[in-house]
Amino acid sequence: MKTPFDFYFDFSSPYAYCASTRIDDLAAEFGRTVRWHPILLGPVFKQMGVLPVAQVPIKGSYAMHDFARTAALFDIPYVQPAQFPISTVTAARSMVWIEKNLGEARARQFAHAAYRAYFAGQQDIGNVDVVLALANDIGIDTAELAAGIQQDQIKTALKEQIEAATARGVFGAPFIFVDDEPFWGFDRFDYIRKWLQR
Amino acid sequence: MKTPFDFYFDFSSPYAYCASTRIDDLAAEFGRTVRWHPILLGPVFKQMGVLPVAQVPIKGSYAMHDFARTAALFDIPYVQPAQFPISTVTAARSMVWIEKNLGEARARQFAHAAYRAYFAGQQDIGNVDVVLALANDIGIDTAELAAGIQQDQIKTALKEQIEAATARGVFGAPFIFVDDEPFWGFDRFDYIRKWLQR
Repeated sequence: MKTPFDFYFDFSSPYAYCASTRIDDLAAEFGRTVRWHPILLGPVFKQMGVLPVAQVPIKGSYAMHDFARTAALFDIPYVQPAQFPISTVTAARSMVWIEKNLGEARARQFAHAAYRAYFAGQQDIGNVDVVLALANDIGIDTAELAAGIQQDQIKTALKEQIEAATARGVFGAPFIFVDDEPFWGFDRFDYIRKWLQR
Repeated sequence: MKTPFDFYFDFSSPYAYCASTRIDDLAAEFGRTVRWHPILLGPVFKQMGVLPVAQVPIKGSYAMHDFARTAALFDIPYVQPAQFPISTVTAARSMVWIEKNLGEARARQFAHAAYRAYFAGQQDIGNVDVVLALANDIGIDTAELAAGIQQDQIKTALKEQIEAATARGVFGAPFIFVDDEPFWGFDRFDYIRKWLQR
């Protein structure tokens, strides 16, 4: 059994959104599966002393242009969110709760729905009501989810997941480990292919 | 006649070195040529309030790993320079002088020699004697070059080239314009292909 890819992402990252639409297919090319790990990059950026890319002088406007262009070049639906970047703690905790209670497949389904809503549907997934509505659309009990994301064990599980990620060297998104080899960026997908084809 | 690519690079950038080995071939795929523009990124990074990537906490060690890995995945000779990053003002001024006095082809020949010496030959091209020796190896009169890089018009020409680059939005290297469309990074070569094939 080959080791699954580990895929780290923040729901507010455009390049991680692009990656989310292709990562399972990329892994499948090599007979692999993917473990999806939502994280929050805010605390990581603080530790590094850097700003989210869209807020860096000069580079920021290029990045905004490159987000939409990258999506277009890879035929991925993209509408620049009006609120950007946003806090994605609710979406991340929701995914943690869904995975623990309903399994990996449902969690992934939720991740796709949340990413699409935010990056192609002009919905602010920083808003808890929006997140609950998205969960409802895919048949998740929203009362249970609303209570679940308030549980200490869920908050702690996400915190530990972020700590484990940074301990492993994750500093951005998407961040992918292939047999402990680290790859940062949607633009590293071809490098992953080359790496596995060596 | 199709517009040439504009290729901006700092002699201290590993990704720009990788790009330098492929940019003319990439352009040729689309019946284009390339205008090579040496710049210095130090002042640009200062203006942006960012550090060279290798000096950013956490990200830096990934970058050092990714430099060598990228070169290996693309079959580009690479030995991490002992002195890194370095000031490349001498190399950049030399290229400006060579282009003005001996033409574009000789300037490009010098650029390849300097990049190879630094990133594959463990030679410190921050040192003026090393730069002159490299020029000598390709048949350039080193007395003329040594005097040339002290000329005010050469210093000014480089400064103006950097100002023109930043005015155009250049904030890193390699930076390539294809018909005014900006692409930052060796990892954008496939994006350039997709862009031109649309």
